[in-house]
Amino acid sequence: MAIKFILHKICAQSGARLGTLETAHGSFETPIFMPVGTQATVKTLTPAQVEAIGAKIILSNTYHLYLRPGHRLVEKSGGLHKFMQWPGSILTDSGGYQVFSLNDLRKISEEGVSFRSHIDGSKHFISPEKAIEIQQALGADIIMCFDECAPYPADRSYVLPSLERTLRWAKRCQDAHSNVERQALFGIIQGGMYHDLRARSAEKMIELDFPGYSVGGLSVGEPKPLMYEILESTVPLMPAYKPRYLMGVGSPDALVEGVLRGIDMFDCVLPTRVARNGLALTSFGKVVVRNNPYAEDFAPLEEGCDCYTCQKFSRAYLRHLIKAEEVLGLVLISIHNLRFLMRLMEKMRQAIREDRSLSFAKEVLAKLL
Amino acid sequence: MAIKFILHKICAQSGARLGTLETAHGSFETPIFMPVGTQATVKTLTPAQVEAIGAKIILSNTYHLYLRPGHRLVEKSGGLHKFMQWPGSILTDSGGYQVFSLNDLRKISEEGVSFRSHIDGSKHFISPEKAIEIQQALGADIIMCFDECAPYPADRSYVLPSLERTLRWAKRCQDAHSNVERQALFGIIQGGMYHDLRARSAEKMIELDFPGYSVGGLSVGEPKPLMYEILESTVPLMPAYKPRYLMGVGSPDALVEGVLRGIDMFDCVLPTRVARNGLALTSFGKVVVRNNPYAEDFAPLEEGCDCYTCQKFSRAYLRHLIKAEEVLGLVLISIHNLRFLMRLMEKMRQAIREDRSLSFAKEVLAKLL
Repeated sequence: MAIKFILHKICAQSGARLGTLETAHGSFETPIFMPVGTQATVKTLTPAQVEAIGAKIILSNTYHLYLRPGHRLVEKSGGLHKFMQWPGSILTDSGGYQVFSLNDLRKISEEGVSFRSHIDGSKHFISPEKAIEIQQALGADIIMCFDECAPYPADRSYVLPSLERTLRWAKRCQDAHSNVERQALFGIIQGGMYHDLRARSAEKMIELDFPGYSVGGLSVGEPKPLMYEILESTVPLMPAYKPRYLMGVGSPDALVEGVLRGIDMFDCVLPTRVARNGLALTSFGKVVVRNNPYAEDFAPLEEGCDCYTCQKFSRAYLRHLIKAEEVLGLVLISIHNLRFLMRLMEKMRQAIREDRSLSFAKEVLAKLL
Repeated sequence: MAIKFILHKICAQSGARLGTLETAHGSFETPIFMPVGTQATVKTLTPAQVEAIGAKIILSNTYHLYLRPGHRLVEKSGGLHKFMQWPGSILTDSGGYQVFSLNDLRKISEEGVSFRSHIDGSKHFISPEKAIEIQQALGADIIMCFDECAPYPADRSYVLPSLERTLRWAKRCQDAHSNVERQALFGIIQGGMYHDLRARSAEKMIELDFPGYSVGGLSVGEPKPLMYEILESTVPLMPAYKPRYLMGVGSPDALVEGVLRGIDMFDCVLPTRVARNGLALTSFGKVVVRNNPYAEDFAPLEEGCDCYTCQKFSRAYLRHLIKAEEVLGLVLISIHNLRFLMRLMEKMRQAIREDRSLSFAKEVLAKLL
């Protein structure tokens, strides 16, 4: 088996779980946050900096790497780990989300999706088989089924046939996947905001017996309480002894809420994307670094934070870098934001270990607001 | 004294000198190259990365820091070293070069230069006294006299009164400089491309007895052979037992030629600026990283280079980053380019030690072309 997941315990206060996930590139405790390295780089950071943040597994995007530099080139270089010099684990998404987001540039059929590249307009076609072929060439430790992430809002009449096709595609992905000893293929549960459709998707996906499952199609514009409701009805249907991954979710509050509901893995571009807008995540909410009050604030972004940025630099310096449009500002805030989420997850794991996940979550959420 | 310079030897093959320069922030061998951190950051790099490159002293720009974030803010934060968390030595220029480069935006008088900010058009005035006040607030280990760097080409009738004013300004800088125990003030020799005017400037500047001298007004558009001619006539006039600094020069060939002619210190934005255009410096010339031949080139930028970039990443990966407009591409090429110049200077110092600077220089220059 490509991965080994051990469930250590479920918190006495909530559905939060403590586990260990092992891949060919290391072993780490869950729940965990995965920084996103869309184009084979966690934006602005060296792999050494990403390691120093405490990241154990990162996500990279199949769609982007397929278009540029091309999966065959990455394969020729020795695979994605070697290409980008990331020593830890990697998960690649299937490209489905990006391809469906192209809207006017794509056309769906039972066979797959034909689309035009957002880079040069060139024509491409990705089927479930092709998505697996690309992901096998990239060589991530965990790969994902090719799926459709339904938009929000979407009628039942759209969501039902979409999830049925995603189920058929999942089977085709499974059949096409030959590298099962080195890469674990996860199934994706869809079903929009409809509890019964989620249940149907979960049931059928679980029948296919994947080594792990994700909840897709959330954090697509719906109110957060609705997302949590869907998690509450869907997650309990998922196998307890397999990892559960909530795709595209990474705001501090949603991470905490997701963990309470039994999610083990998360990914999101948020920490690095907001950093590039000069926004820092802290345990007392967001800090807009360029704001005037920080001009002569010689304290770190967050007292007590152990990241390189907070250990070394003042808010005044960071504000100067952002105002002067210096790249180092983005680098330093990205480091802090990622480390902040890593520490948040470390603290959540400790709270689960000590059966106080709910009390800890309440504390965290109260300070965030 | 703020600095201590020890001249160890002059090469038997050329005018190249081996020395040690000591400041309150460390001691290092000369000749040395100083990376430029214009806005209190060596562009795209953390101080830790700049240290890892082997840099011992960096240059920062008075004009830029005066305008943003302001020298008083930097002073309040504990000075420039603390503000930017650079543990090594710092040299600040005087702002003269930048102010004079503003052309239509500035007006010169005997008193100083009034100008408009390139950022917001606000009105400012920098006199020699003000330039020293700013540099004292910033707190660099070595500071520079406020001077005019004459353009190229420039008539004798322009250069002569300009250098005379620069001499009067140097005296005023010296009189205004109160922090002599912590900051060494260097004089700047001007005189355009006129040997006799250079000699006049050198003679008068030396009478003022500064702890170090720079050659300014070169690498301003003149052909390189002309720059070398000026160095050949000017450098021998400079005190042997004081450091000699050639301002704004940093192309690999000009560094080698400058060292042969007795220069101890250099600075230039070139290695980081060309990196941001995807251009790598190597001992066999420039590498345009985005070029097609590197698409599937899995070798490092330069075989045998000990920098983080060359130890870890392939040309194919760097090309991918540059084509995908990823910041990490600029970071990694900046690291390589700076390390390349650091190693070039290390090798030059070793060659001087072994009395083979000229033979070594010939080898280097032959490979560069």
